[in-house]
Parts: sequence; C-alpha cells; structure tokens
Amino acid sequence: MTVLILTSEQDVTADMAVVELNARGIPVLRLDPAELPGGVDVSGEYAHGTFHGHLSVGGRVVSMSGLRSIWVRRPGAPAARSRAASAWLTEEASQALYGMLRCTDARWMNHPDAARQARHKPWQLWLARACGLPVPATLITTFPRVAREFAERYPDLVVKPVSGAHPDGGTLAVPTTRVRPGEDYRDVAHGPTLLQRRVRKRADIRLTCVGDRMFAARAQGAPDDPEAVVDVRFDPDAGPWRPVSVPRRVADGVQAYLTRAQLAYGAFDFAEDSDGIWWFLECNQSGQFGFVEIETGQPIGRAVAQWLAGEPFGPAPA
Amino acid sequence: MTVLILTSEQDVTADMAVVELNARGIPVLRLDPAELPGGVDVSGEYAHGTFHGHLSVGGRVVSMSGLRSIWVRRPGAPAARSRAASAWLTEEASQALYGMLRCTDARWMNHPDAARQARHKPWQLWLARACGLPVPATLITTFPRVAREFAERYPDLVVKPVSGAHPDGGTLAVPTTRVRPGEDYRDVAHGPTLLQRRVRKRADIRLTCVGDRMFAARAQGAPDDPEAVVDVRFDPDAGPWRPVSVPRRVADGVQAYLTRAQLAYGAFDFAEDSDGIWWFLECNQSGQFGFVEIETGQPIGRAVAQWLAGEPFGPAPA
Repeated sequence: MTVLILTSEQDVTADMAVVELNARGIPVLRLDPAELPGGVDVSGEYAHGTFHGHLSVGGRVVSMSGLRSIWVRRPGAPAARSRAASAWLTEEASQALYGMLRCTDARWMNHPDAARQARHKPWQLWLARACGLPVPATLITTFPRVAREFAERYPDLVVKPVSGAHPDGGTLAVPTTRVRPGEDYRDVAHGPTLLQRRVRKRADIRLTCVGDRMFAARAQGAPDDPEAVVDVRFDPDAGPWRPVSVPRRVADGVQAYLTRAQLAYGAFDFAEDSDGIWWFLECNQSGQFGFVEIETGQPIGRAVAQWLAGEPFGPAPA
Repeated sequence: MTVLILTSEQDVTADMAVVELNARGIPVLRLDPAELPGGVDVSGEYAHGTFHGHLSVGGRVVSMSGLRSIWVRRPGAPAARSRAASAWLTEEASQALYGMLRCTDARWMNHPDAARQARHKPWQLWLARACGLPVPATLITTFPRVAREFAERYPDLVVKPVSGAHPDGGTLAVPTTRVRPGEDYRDVAHGPTLLQRRVRKRADIRLTCVGDRMFAARAQGAPDDPEAVVDVRFDPDAGPWRPVSVPRRVADGVQAYLTRAQLAYGAFDFAEDSDGIWWFLECNQSGQFGFVEIETGQPIGRAVAQWLAGEPFGPAPA
C-alpha cells in the first residue's frame, strides 16, 4: 500500500515526512498535479461494475486501489505546467485526478472538501467558539456605520483580510495590523473588512495537530508594547519557538474542532494574554510545520509519516 | 423564517419557486452575490460567545439566524459587479458571505461542499455504480495506448469533456459526440479524455429530484440512427418531453445516490435502451428544470418551494 503525496518539487517540508516513510519501507508516490498531463498521467476505467484507476509518474505506475493515504501538501494547479495550459484544461485535469482519487478508500490529510470548508475564516471563528475556545470579539462587515460602532465598543482593534489572501496573489500574506485611532471606516463599504479586538499578548502559540497528536510551540514576546509588530509572521524579533504543554481545556476544544471539521491536520495560531489564556486566532489546515520542528525539535514530520502510514496512535478524524 | 435564494436577476426558473413561496406567505430574500458589496451588504459579529449575522439588500435587513433555508440556484461570483472587481475581492466577499452562511442552521439546496463534490464526473460514475445504477463502460485517460485498447473492446464510443465545461467558458456546453472509426487517439496525451460506450438509446430520460420527490420525463428518439445527434441538448428533433414513471430499482438507486452525495436537488440524465434499461449518464446538482416543467406540467417549482419552506413530504438529505 502506497502513500500518495501531492505537492510541488520544491516542497522541502514534505521531504521531512518522506524520509520517515522511507525509513519504514513504506512506498511513496510523490507528484505535482501541475505536471498532469505529461510528467504525470492518469487513467481510470469503469466497466463490469468496478472502477480501476492508475497513476503514472516517470514510468512508474501505481494502482489507485493500492493507495493507503493521500497527503495534499502544496500541490500546483492541475495542468498548470502543460504546454497548452488554460483554465479549461486545469478544470479537466482537476476533475480527472481528484474525481478519481475521491473514488478510493484512501485516508486523506486533508480531504479537499474538509480543506475548503476549513479555509473560511468566519466559519473558523464560529466553530472555535462552539468548541469552547476563547475567540476575541470580531466583526466582519461592509457597513461603515457598524464598523464605527464596533470601534467605539472595542477601541483597540486589529484589521486583517477575511480570506487571509493577498491582493497580489501567490504565497504573499497581508500582515495583521493595528487600526489607527480616529479611523473613519468609509472604505469598509468597498470590501468586507475583518476587525478584531487586539489581544494584549505576552506570547504567540503555534499548535500543530496531526491526527490526535498535538505539538505546541510558544514564542515569548516583549512586554505589551503599542509599537510592537502585531503579526508574528512579520516580526523580526519573534521567537525563538520553544515547546510548551497544552492546557487541558484547549486540548479538548482543539480536538473537538478537528473532529467537527473532519481535519487530519491543522495548525492553530493562538495569542496568549497576561492571564495565560490562549485566544484562538485561526486554524490553517495546510499550515507549515517545518520552522517549528527545526526550532523545537518536535517530531512533527514523523507524526505526519506515522499518520500517513496508518500506524496506530489513536483515532483519526474521518 | 426567511428563504434565501442566491441567483442572478435574470433567472426566470427561480421565479417559478418564488411565486409558490409568495403564495404561501413565506418571506423570501433573493440576491446575487455578484452585487456584494454595494447592492448587497453583509455583516457578522462574534462577541460574548455568540454570532450574529445580517444580510441587507435594497434597504431590507434580514438576520442570518432567521434563515430557514438557502437555495443556491445560479449565483454570480461574489463582488463580480463591484467597481473594484478583482480575484482577491471575489475571494474576500466569497469568504465573508458563504463563511457566515455556513454558521447558520439553515437547510441548503445544495450545500456548497456537496455541490462541489457532486460536480466531479469520475466520482458520479463511481457513486452511481455503487448505488446500483447501470453505467455504460467508461474510460478517462491521458494514455493514447489505453484509449486505443478501450476502443478495440468497445468500438462504438462517444467522447465528452471530463468536467462538462466548455473551453470558452461561461454557460456553453460541449456536445457529446461519436468517435470516428479509425481515430488514432494521439491527442489524448494532451488532456484527460472521457470515452464512453454509446448506448443505443430509444429515449432520453431527465429525472429531476427534489428531496425525496422524483419527476421523470422521457423524450422518445428516432429508431437507432447512426447519423442522429447523440446529445439531446443539441438535437433539434428532440422531444417532446412526456411524464414517465420511475422503475422501482432506479428510484432506489437514485435515492441512495442523493443520500450519499448529501444533495437535496439533482437532475439525472439517463439513456433508455431498447430493453428499457435506464443507463446513468450524469447527475447535475444544479440542472435546469424549467423546460421539463413547461413541457410536462410536472410541479417541480412547487416541490422546490415546499422543500425550501420545510413542508413535510418525507426526509430530505442532510
């Protein structure tokens, strides 16, 4: 039984799990859907009441019925590297590849539908709260008047994109930033805006979950400084990341979140306040773990490999 | 409790259900996400452990907690009609709108995740077979050699797009067409190709399902004519559509399909052969029903309205 990894060639984080799978003698097929067709080929036949699917990369052919698990890491858009690349060909190749993989019994990390649902920030906030995780007061609105009223109630706010995406696309991120006092909020009418009460944090927490295993890392911040960079991703003084244990209530809430979201993997960001409370900021279902593993020594890549290999360490979300 | 309908202004099929809802005194909010922000506005607040969301269209404000059901008919891309339209703004507006609607208890026709899964043709063929519906032998491949071998086993083939989409986009469709004898299949290497054994059909069947209600219509064809147009959508001689009863085995298979696909609505296309067998071709989760209702008089719009209103006529898929 083979582990299928869908990711780009340049993905060094995937290598950390591949090394572990190789050490266990588990066959791995790694491919980038961007190379379909040509570098990657696919075939599936529906006849006599059964379905037989195959994948081929560099002359190696693997039966889809022999897939034990599928890791959707950082795959390119199907057919993106075809000589005849087009939006239509991407749709055709995407349906062919993912449509057939959906017919297999393989376990997904993460299933595309769960992944898509999990990307919705408004739903994340709702689910986190429903699972008992503390969520800072948040507003998402296109009404300037409502934004103004929210700012009167919560004068110390940050603003971030609803989708987490950057207007220029790609892997760029928009930093979460503080809202200036006296902001007039007129521009809220031109696009949904996410405003959130700023947590006076003393540390950032990255909690990486693999199945039911949790790896928490903590980066101590400077004492609350109004001039400090809010977004740890853009803070040159952030870190180092150190392992930290997970409070029981947080662990229960996070496990409930993953189960309801049907996620096998999730990277949670929390802000720890001066009372030690972990405030939920977001859960990135495809969040990086390489930087945490390198700084903390936590064996996250190995845990991913164990989950993909199907080694038992507790029940995994469906 | 309000019914929310997401569709374009020009959608006359939606009108057929709106008339029925109006007759029942059920409040309806109809909007096109393309008008967000501006014509449509959205706001949601997460505070004190609860979520309060609102939609506003033309000065009318509706609470998201007051939505009984959501009909995703033919919505435009969010923010598509904004003055500052961009792929990023569409992503932001889409996350804001659908992300909040996902937090409600409303029933969906159809839920976006179920809809997305249901569009995958390779998965449709697999699911139909798993539910006991006859499926013509089908191959989806990027291997010319495999296509050639399939054509030797099934010499009478049709070809259609894997995704059902047209290279020029929009609402265009590519007709299913017969494969010429002696086709060399070299071009299969340039894009996944769907080949299917041609059913020698004596009629086309459109089975429209609303919850657990089924409306089947049949269009008698000419006696098997190799020159005939294969695709009923492009056949000027097709029709008229006449009501027909659904064989018990088909009804059971279709109900299993809808349940497993978590669809509240689906339009199935079958080809009826000379033995009277209905061969599954596809299930369009957002298929039109207006033309069937007009030709057959079947009250499909009323059934949609009843489902959206929550009137009991049997259990609906989750």
